[in-house]
Amino acid sequence: METANGIVTLLSDFGPGIYSASVKGVILSAAPNARIVDISHEIGPHNILEAALTLCAYAPTFPTGTLHLAVVDPGVGTLRRVVLLEAGGQFYLAPDNGLLTLVLRSGRDLRAWNVENEDFFRKPPSPTFHGRDIFAPVAGAIASGITPEAFGPEIPPESLCRLAIAEPVAAEGAIRGEIIFIDHFGNLVSNIDTDLLETLGSRESLLVDFQNVELAPIRTTYADVPSGEPLALVGSIGYLEIAVCLGSAQETFHPTPDEKIIVRRLGA
Amino acid sequence: METANGIVTLLSDFGPGIYSASVKGVILSAAPNARIVDISHEIGPHNILEAALTLCAYAPTFPTGTLHLAVVDPGVGTLRRVVLLEAGGQFYLAPDNGLLTLVLRSGRDLRAWNVENEDFFRKPPSPTFHGRDIFAPVAGAIASGITPEAFGPEIPPESLCRLAIAEPVAAEGAIRGEIIFIDHFGNLVSNIDTDLLETLGSRESLLVDFQNVELAPIRTTYADVPSGEPLALVGSIGYLEIAVCLGSAQETFHPTPDEKIIVRRLGA
Amino acid sequence: METANGIVTLLSDFGPGIYSASVKGVILSAAPNARIVDISHEIGPHNILEAALTLCAYAPTFPTGTLHLAVVDPGVGTLRRVVLLEAGGQFYLAPDNGLLTLVLRSGRDLRAWNVENEDFFRKPPSPTFHGRDIFAPVAGAIASGITPEAFGPEIPPESLCRLAIAEPVAAEGAIRGEIIFIDHFGNLVSNIDTDLLETLGSRESLLVDFQNVELAPIRTTYADVPSGEPLALVGSIGYLEIAVCLGSAQETFHPTPDEKIIVRRLGA
Repeated sequence: METANGIVTLLSDFGPGIYSASVKGVILSAAPNARIVDISHEIGPHNILEAALTLCAYAPTFPTGTLHLAVVDPGVGTLRRVVLLEAGGQFYLAPDNGLLTLVLRSGRDLRAWNVENEDFFRKPPSPTFHGRDIFAPVAGAIASGITPEAFGPEIPPESLCRLAIAEPVAAEGAIRGEIIFIDHFGNLVSNIDTDLLETLGSRESLLVDFQNVELAPIRTTYADVPSGEPLALVGSIGYLEIAVCLGSAQETFHPTPDEKIIVRRLGA
Repeated sequence: METANGIVTLLSDFGPGIYSASVKGVILSAAPNARIVDISHEIGPHNILEAALTLCAYAPTFPTGTLHLAVVDPGVGTLRRVVLLEAGGQFYLAPDNGLLTLVLRSGRDLRAWNVENEDFFRKPPSPTFHGRDIFAPVAGAIASGITPEAFGPEIPPESLCRLAIAEPVAAEGAIRGEIIFIDHFGNLVSNIDTDLLETLGSRESLLVDFQNVELAPIRTTYADVPSGEPLALVGSIGYLEIAVCLGSAQETFHPTPDEKIIVRRLGA
Repeated sequence: METANGIVTLLSDFGPGIYSASVKGVILSAAPNARIVDISHEIGPHNILEAALTLCAYAPTFPTGTLHLAVVDPGVGTLRRVVLLEAGGQFYLAPDNGLLTLVLRSGRDLRAWNVENEDFFRKPPSPTFHGRDIFAPVAGAIASGITPEAFGPEIPPESLCRLAIAEPVAAEGAIRGEIIFIDHFGNLVSNIDTDLLETLGSRESLLVDFQNVELAPIRTTYADVPSGEPLALVGSIGYLEIAVCLGSAQETFHPTPDEKIIVRRLGA
């Protein structure tokens, strides 16, 4: 098992202000030497999928032994579990509501614990703010070196809740996927990853069809087309995306939720 | 008197960028080992009340000896004082414009000082940015262990400026309060606290009237009603609030400033 | 040459979330003791000028030896250089696209290096995210004490890319400048600095003409006029600006990009 390194990253839909601040205060009260790193408190309110996609993209860049505290928790105060997960040498503390779906999918060396030892909670926990009263004091305890067994029994990682995330389909010489994430620049990120693309052919030989606009070939970087022009490329987290050079594909295409994207061979 | 622990929290209406960044730079220049914690720089411009409500909610979660630097300062460059307050083992540095109203109201073991020793200021201080030139270097000095007396004479805490915040009225078997704060999720937080509610009866026996919608009983957590439904509950900082399960009460009710909220006994 | 002090400030247009988080993770993986300070990730997408103005204003407030990592990089993946600059005892790591224009203009003791030693890069670097794969690991290496020569050859500071920023013109007893920056409060900051103003006369003797509104004299602080009234004053970074007491000059005047501002002597 990895040892906690004292770094605690924070991801939430709490916004700036009272809620995220209280989480920080409680962590530092429990672990005065913890090193808190804000990731974002601007996840869309109650948007578990956005948090899940974000978490799995940045967490592996941190040193092993980092604790990632992720709280998007519309079911706060209900019976959903609080879980601690170790995956790839990183620790994750989150509600068991699907937020860890993608970490579980890509992770190796998985171990999980059900966090239920009330000795570590603030008392009495507010039924509406487990971030402050359960997650934060437990995060502080982990950051200060208390090992996972102290918080509750080990549970099978496969027992954790998973979101149903749309999978791309490859058939008849084409890949049909959809947009699952829009980034800060308005780039439209699909669920089609590099490995799947390569089964169809080299990027130079492929055409992307999005809203009946044909984009070909798949480009390497944003500046490969003139300013204002749309393009398809593989973004930095390894998924096919639609972008506009020096612009916003979101503003250009106004995609619907789950809008379809098709890849096929040029000339096919 | 408490000893400073080197943590400095920052609350302001400066936004991200030049102003908040300059405050951090000056603090670290004065106290290279200070540990800066961003709370929010997104307080509404010049909104002293929002800052006052935010500050009193998160500050007590921090370890004793933390310095809370709060600058929302529309009167910058005028004769309003700069004050250092110790309350409940925490330190507060702020303009004397009402920002400390709620800390003063809830605080115990209050002591205050008028910060006027120019030896600690950047010279000459800009008349428009005391955050950088007065508050930040003094905050750095406090974080590095200089005791309050060095900055100016002790003053009576009761001499500090206080905002007139609307008080709820209990009469004729009902409590009449108003909305004083809207949080990041669009929850509408009133000025009616737990203690006052209990004078009327148990939460199960109470009805809340808001915009002629009757919400009863007072719930425990957001998921106690179906998705999209409004509810009344006591939020995590101890005040009665109006919420919408998985939605935004602000978008549902579009409350006017100071909109009224009434609590009475069910069946009364 | 200054020695790095381990503080790394971050300025970008990455927004909160995946991209800024990944930069932090990689820095901490390379330099576990680095002290990261968020400045802003809310620079307008691809807005190099806004980043350049912001950077030169806050960087000098930090202790000498601080590394300022600034990434607004629309040309990512093209042949633009990555440069390390030492100026005034501070270090700057940025794409060579004009982002350092104002630091170069105001800086003293300038030295620059072309960052090209791939031993420090993540491999292979994503063509779309040099922030994570080139800038962040190099920033970590600098913060942990590796000296500039390790990253590539020294280059003449005058070889760095500079933006053409509009210069004010003084002629016929008047100064004609323009608005180059709008701050978080909606204050309109011009390119006319204190030194240039003084060539025309004392602030009490000057009149500012903006959208045919005459503002005189030049004020000292925002509260020098009644609430809601416009004024002209010299802001905290030393430039003439148009403001509205307790309001937003941006909302009052709706300035066009590069809108003109004229200063002349009262009665002239």
